[in-house]
Amino acid sequence: MGIRILVTGGTFDKEYNELDGTLFFKETHMREMLELGRCKLNVDIRTIMMVDSLELTDADRNLIADQCRKTKEDKIIVTHGTDTMEVTAKKLGETITDKTIVLTGALIPYKFGSSDGLFNLGSALAFVQTLPTGVYIAMNGRYFHWGNVRKNRQTGQFEEIHIEGR
Amino acid sequence: MGIRILVTGGTFDKEYNELDGTLFFKETHMREMLELGRCKLNVDIRTIMMVDSLELTDADRNLIADQCRKTKEDKIIVTHGTDTMEVTAKKLGETITDKTIVLTGALIPYKFGSSDGLFNLGSALAFVQTLPTGVYIAMNGRYFHWGNVRKNRQTGQFEEIHIEGR
Amino acid sequence: MGIRILVTGGTFDKEYNELDGTLFFKETHMREMLELGRCKLNVDIRTIMMVDSLELTDADRNLIADQCRKTKEDKIIVTHGTDTMEVTAKKLGETITDKTIVLTGALIPYKFGSSDGLFNLGSALAFVQTLPTGVYIAMNGRYFHWGNVRKNRQTGQFEEIHIEGR
Amino acid sequence: MGIRILVTGGTFDKEYNELDGTLFFKETHMREMLELGRCKLNVDIRTIMMVDSLELTDADRNLIADQCRKTKEDKIIVTHGTDTMEVTAKKLGETITDKTIVLTGALIPYKFGSSDGLFNLGSALAFVQTLPTGVYIAMNGRYFHWGNVRKNRQTGQFEEIHIEGR
Repeated sequence: MGIRILVTGGTFDKEYNELDGTLFFKETHMREMLELGRCKLNVDIRTIMMVDSLELTDADRNLIADQCRKTKEDKIIVTHGTDTMEVTAKKLGETITDKTIVLTGALIPYKFGSSDGLFNLGSALAFVQTLPTGVYIAMNGRYFHWGNVRKNRQTGQFEEIHIEGR
Repeated sequence: MGIRILVTGGTFDKEYNELDGTLFFKETHMREMLELGRCKLNVDIRTIMMVDSLELTDADRNLIADQCRKTKEDKIIVTHGTDTMEVTAKKLGETITDKTIVLTGALIPYKFGSSDGLFNLGSALAFVQTLPTGVYIAMNGRYFHWGNVRKNRQTGQFEEIHIEGR
Repeated sequence: MGIRILVTGGTFDKEYNELDGTLFFKETHMREMLELGRCKLNVDIRTIMMVDSLELTDADRNLIADQCRKTKEDKIIVTHGTDTMEVTAKKLGETITDKTIVLTGALIPYKFGSSDGLFNLGSALAFVQTLPTGVYIAMNGRYFHWGNVRKNRQTGQFEEIHIEGR
Repeated sequence: MGIRILVTGGTFDKEYNELDGTLFFKETHMREMLELGRCKLNVDIRTIMMVDSLELTDADRNLIADQCRKTKEDKIIVTHGTDTMEVTAKKLGETITDKTIVLTGALIPYKFGSSDGLFNLGSALAFVQTLPTGVYIAMNGRYFHWGNVRKNRQTGQFEEIHIEGR
């Protein structure tokens, strides 16, 4: 049984429009990234949407959850903008408990050379193979359970909300 | 408790000598790669040696094993040339059973732009956090137990020696 | 006698802010680019301003013209945003006739990997050494006299306003 | 009338063989480089040979000279390994006087990310448009007449043999 990758957009897949200097979406670079990583996993990629995560609606999140439920694979990676990644993770975590779902993204677009995207993708693919069922965020080399994670807006890093033992 | 990264060289860290067109080692790019990946794990990097894995001797492998045993961390990543990665993995696997050790490397030097190194490093860091104690190779997005892995010289990929169920 | 490079900003030097996804200026990458090109010319770099060329005022253009007049070098490169490069070229061309001034820029920021910046810089440095006194734009591998050039907003390319012989 | 680019190989076009770690030639990256530079010049590319310049024979150099003579364009760029670039320049310079020929190359392969190739190509295309007939080498942002140039093996830079005024 393979791994399903659901693409929803986010910084990961943004490109620079050289005519007007804005950032935009064309299509996902997921295939290209997997080839660069010489990835030999059995992977099936589906683009659900291509949006900035600040613009994701409840309807969009329902659609993502639906897709996660319907896929035959029980190991799923969701690429997602980092700004509301924790919101989607919560949505998925509250309703899906029988699959391993890992959300990941990037702070720098893949096409911009200095992206963290390839590193994050490598870690997300490893986490999805080894973590028990549940919903997680994979960023900064770490994994976080959906119920205990937030993006720190000052640093751009992901962190636990509650630190164990405090 | 953090993660120890032991650097032994390999394609990962090779550079191009623009004066004579040969490949050589200067110093590891591990720190730079972790920064590119915005890695926030507690990581301690040590360069043990900088050699092509085809030139690794038994004494070198004993040294690597010694270092693995001595580190206080029980999660260890060893960067290593891919040509004899399986030999070192076997050496470590036969003698160290109380730590999680993940060997990884690259087919293309990190400095050459199109490297698989960042992807492999991301996956190795994830595997070392989640796999049970034992010695593994992380390449091509996958992990392999030390007792059941070889590099296919024709394709450059890692694969199981014995396929389950055959 | 060397070459003076006057930096005014433009896409050339834009960077991606990973905290909010906007583009911004930090400092010029000119030194880094010259090193990448193994440039051994006698070059003196001065940053006059760091602005998007759509925001350049008449006062800014007067300042650029002043700087061109005051430099002891008679070969000058001005890095500049492409959107109003032709306006500044005209301003300089109408008032400075005893120096060779070449304006150049980029459609993609240098830091984004797939930039045309290094190519344009190489050509601008060559043109400034070989063209007679006058003011020129160097883009797309070509050079254009200040009095006969515009940026085509549809294609992003520079072109002559009047084609000879038409 | 356009510009002819004659490809002969050299570091410019070398690639890394990930199976055995050697450098080899596949095909030229000239088209890709011109696209990256958004070059809009009328350019015609021909691959004559793909060799390391240390292996170039007299017969090879005769072939290059023949091709330079036969092309209808009178502006020609020859991409060439840097190690014997001065030898080929001399060969061409002694026999062809009615065209502008610029030899250029790179110290780092184009595919390796940190290449000087794009910078050199930009400058070579500018020099070939502006220099009088004759044979030149374009490297390090500079141009050198065929009769007064050598590669300094210690620094990797090109330099005049005779410095004017000494």
